[in-house]
Amino acid sequence: MIPQWVIEKKRDGGVLEADDIRAFIEGYTTGTIPDYQMAALAMAIFFQGMTPEETAALTDAMMRSGDCLSFEGWPRPTADKHSTGGIGDKLSMVIGPLAASAGLAVPKISGRGLGITGGTLDKLESIPGYSTQLSISEFQRVVAEVGCSITGQTARLAPADKKLYALRDVTGTVPSIPLITASIMSKKLAAGADTLVFDVKCGRAAFMQTLDEARELAHSLLQVGGALGRHMGALITDMTQPLGRAVGNAVEVAEAIETLKGGGPADTRMLMIELTALMCERGGVMPDRATARRELAERLDDGRALDVFRRMVEAQGGDACVIDDPLRLPQPGAVVEVPAPRDGIVADVDARQVGRVVLQLGGGRTTTDDVIDPAAGVDRLVQAGETVARGQPLMRLLACDAARAEALLQEAAVAVQLSETAPAERKLVIEEVAPNKGE
Amino acid sequence: MIPQWVIEKKRDGGVLEADDIRAFIEGYTTGTIPDYQMAALAMAIFFQGMTPEETAALTDAMMRSGDCLSFEGWPRPTADKHSTGGIGDKLSMVIGPLAASAGLAVPKISGRGLGITGGTLDKLESIPGYSTQLSISEFQRVVAEVGCSITGQTARLAPADKKLYALRDVTGTVPSIPLITASIMSKKLAAGADTLVFDVKCGRAAFMQTLDEARELAHSLLQVGGALGRHMGALITDMTQPLGRAVGNAVEVAEAIETLKGGGPADTRMLMIELTALMCERGGVMPDRATARRELAERLDDGRALDVFRRMVEAQGGDACVIDDPLRLPQPGAVVEVPAPRDGIVADVDARQVGRVVLQLGGGRTTTDDVIDPAAGVDRLVQAGETVARGQPLMRLLACDAARAEALLQEAAVAVQLSETAPAERKLVIEEVAPNKGE
Repeated sequence: MIPQWVIEKKRDGGVLEADDIRAFIEGYTTGTIPDYQMAALAMAIFFQGMTPEETAALTDAMMRSGDCLSFEGWPRPTADKHSTGGIGDKLSMVIGPLAASAGLAVPKISGRGLGITGGTLDKLESIPGYSTQLSISEFQRVVAEVGCSITGQTARLAPADKKLYALRDVTGTVPSIPLITASIMSKKLAAGADTLVFDVKCGRAAFMQTLDEARELAHSLLQVGGALGRHMGALITDMTQPLGRAVGNAVEVAEAIETLKGGGPADTRMLMIELTALMCERGGVMPDRATARRELAERLDDGRALDVFRRMVEAQGGDACVIDDPLRLPQPGAVVEVPAPRDGIVADVDARQVGRVVLQLGGGRTTTDDVIDPAAGVDRLVQAGETVARGQPLMRLLACDAARAEALLQEAAVAVQLSETAPAERKLVIEEVAPNKGE
Repeated sequence: MIPQWVIEKKRDGGVLEADDIRAFIEGYTTGTIPDYQMAALAMAIFFQGMTPEETAALTDAMMRSGDCLSFEGWPRPTADKHSTGGIGDKLSMVIGPLAASAGLAVPKISGRGLGITGGTLDKLESIPGYSTQLSISEFQRVVAEVGCSITGQTARLAPADKKLYALRDVTGTVPSIPLITASIMSKKLAAGADTLVFDVKCGRAAFMQTLDEARELAHSLLQVGGALGRHMGALITDMTQPLGRAVGNAVEVAEAIETLKGGGPADTRMLMIELTALMCERGGVMPDRATARRELAERLDDGRALDVFRRMVEAQGGDACVIDDPLRLPQPGAVVEVPAPRDGIVADVDARQVGRVVLQLGGGRTTTDDVIDPAAGVDRLVQAGETVARGQPLMRLLACDAARAEALLQEAAVAVQLSETAPAERKLVIEEVAPNKGE
């Protein structure tokens, strides 16, 4: 395999051989193929794309670049969910325990937030003591004992992805469907999940802004997962408005716990049940979707899902008392209400704008070196269709001090659009993407 | 300037600012911008191209990455010719001295051959003692004293090009008109030529295989040179058949000397006069092309051009006796004739095939580390339109030993196509490319 010939073939629109892709990724991982050749290939892939077979070979090669966890012979089928990221998306924290309560094993590797999108690891770290840096054996032990574990990527899982992701970030090669697919899938597959369900977000606050882009990514994920023998499912869901009423870190943990107690905002509970039902159906632990929805709602209402969450937090060193007393989570130095400028019906809440406010409150990162304030964020956020009177709060800003929050009052207020008439009902699940033939 | 933003802008089809291009190339030259970002940008340029203004800014930045020689205040205008490379093209060795004999100063930086295309430096090095590694001050001294010097690129002239060229070679980013333009022009401009004439080869043995590609490169070169205030000219010339009757290194020097003595093959002499006439006209040392052609022919016939060549060889340490006695040039261990398989008229000589034969005889390189045999090559090559009888030689193969030559008899024979009828006359100068408005 001559690296520049592989680059030239892709540059000229050719289809790469699986062996060449494997050799290229192996060489890149071990360092015999330098960053500059990988960067040139990534840019050629950006322009020329990849066939599903090429993307599957790339995913497979990246998965095999490090350890691949195996749960073969375990009593439970393994499953995981991946979201492409959104504002207020606290589902991962809840779906893992909920799915585990229904008989799946969920070995979940999560990431940190960057830009306006929060990360599950940052959120979980607001639970005092919770470790997101388990070793692979600790991770496997927690999955075995609790049914679910959520930890960060280790250097031993899909190291090619870690290296390539950092390279893509500085070479303008992030927005490429085959590269995104291989990046997402290689980690998930290396972590050992047999069933994978994707929540592809779509809309102004999502990575995929249009439905066409979201569909393209969803199909690519389904095709590659299918080619590599996994059970797959995908929903395209709306990310124009935030999910739930809380955006931040500790504040999202609190809302997640509320949901695990059978409460929480209706949109969050509904989407959580939909995604977990899809996991349970595809993973073979529920006979059909309707049964799954009913059974999962019961597990939220009767505390079985909460119990798994509690045991997971304890197993990872966290203070489970926060579950009974959410005030033990990090609390903000100041809470400032954002008053409605007039009477009206909430027509729209701009998730991107809310994300920007949370970022400036200290709840997010603009570079990977930034330190986040776990208590910063927004809560009691109004949702579309609700009526507000002038002066009533549209949301509360949670910050280290009042000045920081007050400086953002105007930016926060414009996130909420008021109207005289009720908006059309929000369609949170836009569509379920069915695998094409052969996927 | 954030490197990845520049990459992304070009990737998305944007037009880069001259300042950003300059900062990127400066950073790349000094090492603050790593190879992988340069590789990604080069691939984005391959796909999205560059406007003439961007290409001029890139050229300018690459030129300024090292020393820029200045001949301001000199009594003679400076001029140079660049060829995109062909089989049997020994023109550079002759055009420099010929142009100098007509009043131009020719500071010529040449390259080595790679693949089937020979390099002027390799050819000149077959003259015993001739140094192609002059320092910049030696180079300037020879130009001042003789009117012409031909040497190799030093690390101090356009180092960005040297670095980028090596990177492009291994990242599949060689065939890009803006990158080729900037590479060619930055070296020529750094060497200080005010007038630049291009011989853009076109045809099966050329880098530009089609007339459209050749025109595109010629226009790009003219535009950039014009934008940077140089006097420009360009001919597109045929490179389907070899130039002259000799292909190799020492053997091409011998043919060049023959031409400087007023003889040599008609095609070589004609093209040499055409290109030098264009240099003299654009450089302002001749009033018009017709006068230039006549005056230059005289300088070939009366020995004035040969005298400059002799003084250049001496000034660069070469043994000028080879001029009077070409047998002092390296001689092959074996000479093997390639007989015509039947009577016929030569319809075609495939320059690419001849190039491949010379390469295998030892006269070229496949990698930059290869050592060439200066005596290897082909001479007494027939030309289209000539009549041969069965058994008469189509060419002679010059090799270190007879076995090496004899192994190539069949490959050499198929380079020459015989026919019953005379071929159409070869149009060696396909067209002169006039600068567009604004070029």
